Amino acid sequence: MVITQTAEEMSHSEQLRHSWVANAAAWRDAVRGQQIESRRLVTDDAIVQTVMAQRPQTVLDLGCGEGWLARRLAVEGLAVTGVDASKPLIEAAEELGHARYVLASYEEIVADPLVTGTGFDVVAANFSLLDDRVEALLAAVASVLSAQGRIVIQTAHPMFSRGEHDYVDGWRVETFDSFNGNWVESMPWYFRTLESWCRTFDAAGLTLEEIREPMHPSRGVPASIIFVCSRAA
Amino acid sequence: MVITQTAEEMSHSEQLRHSWVANAAAWRDAVRGQQIESRRLVTDDAIVQTVMAQRPQTVLDLGCGEGWLARRLAVEGLAVTGVDASKPLIEAAEELGHARYVLASYEEIVADPLVTGTGFDVVAANFSLLDDRVEALLAAVASVLSAQGRIVIQTAHPMFSRGEHDYVDGWRVETFDSFNGNWVESMPWYFRTLESWCRTFDAAGLTLEEIREPMHPSRGVPASIIFVCSRAA
Repeated sequence: MVITQTAEEMSHSEQLRHSWVANAAAWRDAVRGQQIESRRLVTDDAIVQTVMAQRPQTVLDLGCGEGWLARRLAVEGLAVTGVDASKPLIEAAEELGHARYVLASYEEIVADPLVTGTGFDVVAANFSLLDDRVEALLAAVASVLSAQGRIVIQTAHPMFSRGEHDYVDGWRVETFDSFNGNWVESMPWYFRTLESWCRTFDAAGLTLEEIREPMHPSRGVPASIIFVCSRAA
Repeated sequence: MVITQTAEEMSHSEQLRHSWVANAAAWRDAVRGQQIESRRLVTDDAIVQTVMAQRPQTVLDLGCGEGWLARRLAVEGLAVTGVDASKPLIEAAEELGHARYVLASYEEIVADPLVTGTGFDVVAANFSLLDDRVEALLAAVASVLSAQGRIVIQTAHPMFSRGEHDYVDGWRVETFDSFNGNWVESMPWYFRTLESWCRTFDAAGLTLEEIREPMHPSRGVPASIIFVCSRAA
C-alpha cells in the first residue's frame, strides 16, 4: 500500500482540528487555571505587550480558544473579535463575554475573510498557527487588516522547541503529558524552521517588521518567538 | 577603580580589529587551504548562492579579508570591490587580484561611505560583522546600494552558536584552538540574538527581506544564518 504524502498530511491536519474539540474542557481549565508555566511567566504578557505596542483600536484574535487574550485586550479598551473552529471553546469564550466571538474554521476564513469582519488594526495569532499550510490563512487575514495593520504571531521558538529532532520542518506531537486534566487526544503540530516561517510570510504577501524573543526568567533562553508582519508594500 | 562599560567595549572592539592584523597570515592560510570545515561544506557556497540569487552586476565585499569571496564572485562575471581594515589581508588579496580592493576601516566607511565607491547591487558581509555596534556601518553601506540593492549578511546562527552562554547579547572569544596555524591573538566577537539582529536592521533603516539557514550536511542544524535586507521603503 502506498500512503501518499497528501493523505498523511490531511490526517495530521484533521487530527489537529479534532483535538481542539476533544480537549476543549481540559484546555479551558488549563488556561483559566494558569496551569501552563511558560504562559503564566512569559508568553501571556509578551503577546499582550506586543499587540498593545501597535496601538490598535480593533483586534482579531485568530484561534482565540476559550478567549483569555480577547478578554485581556478588551479590558485594555480594545474592540476584539475572537474566532475559533472549536465549538466548545467558542461556547466557553461566550460564557465570559467581553468580546465578539465567531465560530469559523480556518478554511472558512480563507473562503470568505469577511466572516470575521474587517478593518482590524491587529490580527493576533497566539500559538494558533499549528497546521502545515498557513499561507492562505495569513493572506486571508491580511486582507481584513486596516491600512497600517499588523499581524502578530506568537509561536514555539524554532531554535528551542525542536527537542530531539533535526532542525527541519515536520509534524510533531504534543501529548499534554506535562499538563494536569483530562486530555483525550494528542495534538499534531507542525514544526517550522525560522527560514520556513520567513518563506511563509513572503508567500502570504507579508513583510516581517519585527522579531521578539521573550526570555524565560530562569532558563536563559526564549520561551517563544513573536513575529510582527505588515502587508508587503 | 571603576571601569566604565564604554571603556571595556572599546577595548573589545580594538582587540577585534587588531586580531585581524596579527592573525592575517594564519587566516589567509586557513581560508586558502580550505581548513575550516563549515565553510568548505556549507557556508562558502551558501553566501555565493545567496549573492547570485540577487542577480547583481556589482558587489561590495565588506570585510573581504584575503579576498576569496571577491575572487569567486569575479569568476561569475561580477565587478567586485573588496574592502577590509587589515592591511596585510588587503595586500594578500591584491596579490591574487580579480577584484578592486580598498584598505579602509569600518569607521572610515561610516565617515565617508563613498570611499568604497557606490551603486552596488549587493553588499555582502560574510562573517565580517563582529563588532558590538554595526548600525552606523549598515546605514553607511546601505547608502551606496543601487536602487533595488540588497545587503546580504552571513553570520553565526544565534541559536546554534551560544555555546554554554545564556541566549543574550554579549562579547564572546574565538581562540582559534580548533584551527591549524600560528594564531597570535584571540578574537573577541559580539554575539547577537535574533531579536537583536532585527533591531539592528531596523535601526540601520533596513527591511529584512529573507532569512536563510544553510544546513550542515550531517549535524542536523544550520551552519550559519543569512539575512537579506533592503533599504526600508
